[in-house]
Amino acid sequence: MAPIRLSSEGAYQSLIDNYDTFMFDCDGVLWHGDQLVPGIRQVLAHLRAHNKHIIFVTNNATKSRRNYKKKFDQLGVQAEVNEVFGSAYASAVYLSTVVKLPKDRKVYVIGQDGLEEELRDEGVTYIGGTDPQDNTSKPFKLEDFELDPTVSAVLCGLDTAINYTKLSKAMQYLIRNPGCLFLATNEDPTFPASGGYLPGAGSISAPLRYALRRDPISIGKPNATMLDCIKAKHHFDPARTIMIGDRLDTDILFGKHGGVSTLLVLTGVTTEEEVSAPNPSPIIPDYILQSLGDLAVLTGEEIRI
Amino acid sequence: MAPIRLSSEGAYQSLIDNYDTFMFDCDGVLWHGDQLVPGIRQVLAHLRAHNKHIIFVTNNATKSRRNYKKKFDQLGVQAEVNEVFGSAYASAVYLSTVVKLPKDRKVYVIGQDGLEEELRDEGVTYIGGTDPQDNTSKPFKLEDFELDPTVSAVLCGLDTAINYTKLSKAMQYLIRNPGCLFLATNEDPTFPASGGYLPGAGSISAPLRYALRRDPISIGKPNATMLDCIKAKHHFDPARTIMIGDRLDTDILFGKHGGVSTLLVLTGVTTEEEVSAPNPSPIIPDYILQSLGDLAVLTGEEIRI
Repeated sequence: MAPIRLSSEGAYQSLIDNYDTFMFDCDGVLWHGDQLVPGIRQVLAHLRAHNKHIIFVTNNATKSRRNYKKKFDQLGVQAEVNEVFGSAYASAVYLSTVVKLPKDRKVYVIGQDGLEEELRDEGVTYIGGTDPQDNTSKPFKLEDFELDPTVSAVLCGLDTAINYTKLSKAMQYLIRNPGCLFLATNEDPTFPASGGYLPGAGSISAPLRYALRRDPISIGKPNATMLDCIKAKHHFDPARTIMIGDRLDTDILFGKHGGVSTLLVLTGVTTEEEVSAPNPSPIIPDYILQSLGDLAVLTGEEIRI
Repeated sequence: MAPIRLSSEGAYQSLIDNYDTFMFDCDGVLWHGDQLVPGIRQVLAHLRAHNKHIIFVTNNATKSRRNYKKKFDQLGVQAEVNEVFGSAYASAVYLSTVVKLPKDRKVYVIGQDGLEEELRDEGVTYIGGTDPQDNTSKPFKLEDFELDPTVSAVLCGLDTAINYTKLSKAMQYLIRNPGCLFLATNEDPTFPASGGYLPGAGSISAPLRYALRRDPISIGKPNATMLDCIKAKHHFDPARTIMIGDRLDTDILFGKHGGVSTLLVLTGVTTEEEVSAPNPSPIIPDYILQSLGDLAVLTGEEIRI
């Protein structure tokens, strides 16, 4: 069924009446980098004033929930740490509650400090990550490497300090430690930055995927694992819940996997052409809205950012 | 047809009688790391004494032909620079003679100094590679990056100093320079080292492949491009030529693509189980020999290494 285009005050009001829980992707929906989308502050305040349940769902694996909260603070947008679900946090929860990693077992991390913070908070022991020993320009020598037999998982997120040492160590654990799990925070091939694109978390795990001919278990959107993590912490009725995002292959597919309604905004990655005839994407949102900020008209306020 | 197992002096002699040109993979066939396979020196000397044409064909993209010659010298095995065909050299020849890269155009290199040496020798201009500006631990900032519009190809080989800066720059050229070629020296997922395996050249190009949803043109074995390069430099009759290697998916497939006979040795990657019933690989060599050194029995010499 073709998506419903929302473009009138009446349609905006129905949207707000029909749902109790609003899940938001962040970059491309609420902001672009450090620039808030016009009207967002008013729209989120309006939803809160009407007792709507707000959850932020992001694949960004470099930031912890506390880092994310700081970003909201800097942009002057109200948010609570427990409203934020990032793929770093979801990966830590997956290890602590789904895998139930025993306390004497470790995770080898390819990733940044936000991912490490979430692992620590969930009581998951890790090595690698930002450890200076692994962030070295010295050549990696396999003959000098000591395999830690207690490493039972490799977790790979976005790591802009990726190097051959980390890839080689991760590879040894995946080959040589029996049953070693291969996890990725998310599989985004790229992410938007400064008007262009840079390699995303999926590209950082790609060498291991290629070398081992093995796909990781991916935690972030569009997989349902992230929603399982949200369900463990929040109560919501899927029939009264809507996922709002700018990417068909992550946000909208995530909503569909989770059995909630979906709203695509055109302020991010997806263009009008991708959702229009004659060859629209097979991933069809329930609703399309030019910008989430358009709902600010309901507040009666003048929009300033 | 099942491969012929060579295990008698008579069979060894027929092999030598039936072929004029012997193409060899190196690691796993002639040596393991810095350790010569027993009997190799005698076998190669015996072939030369019988006026056989010898060509070394290797996917190693970190060494130039001159580097390779030094390795032969160190191991006390006779070899000439023009007998060596590495994927670094073949990639340079591909750019200079097949692509015919104009003199005012450049290649962005992810790779090591052996690859750079071959590009220089073939008169191909490049940037990236071992340039200290790209081998930095500083974070890559897209807003500070200046796109060089004369970069017409990205060439990716094994680079043990791989980092986010190089991957990000390569990605910009492939996205933003119209028609920019995406080349890989070879696609080996791993390579053997110190009794284990490390990520190979194919794993180094994997992030770009994943980020861009685009496969590179791969120059090395098993693709026929390397054989085209050999043909440009040497005359040989495919009906009287045999490719000898330890990997089914690179060496033996390369020989099959090139229409020459193939001999698998079991001193490297491929195990007896992989070529035996009930589930052998679909890539079937013409002959199987335990070790190339076994032919040394024909020389009548005592084998010392």
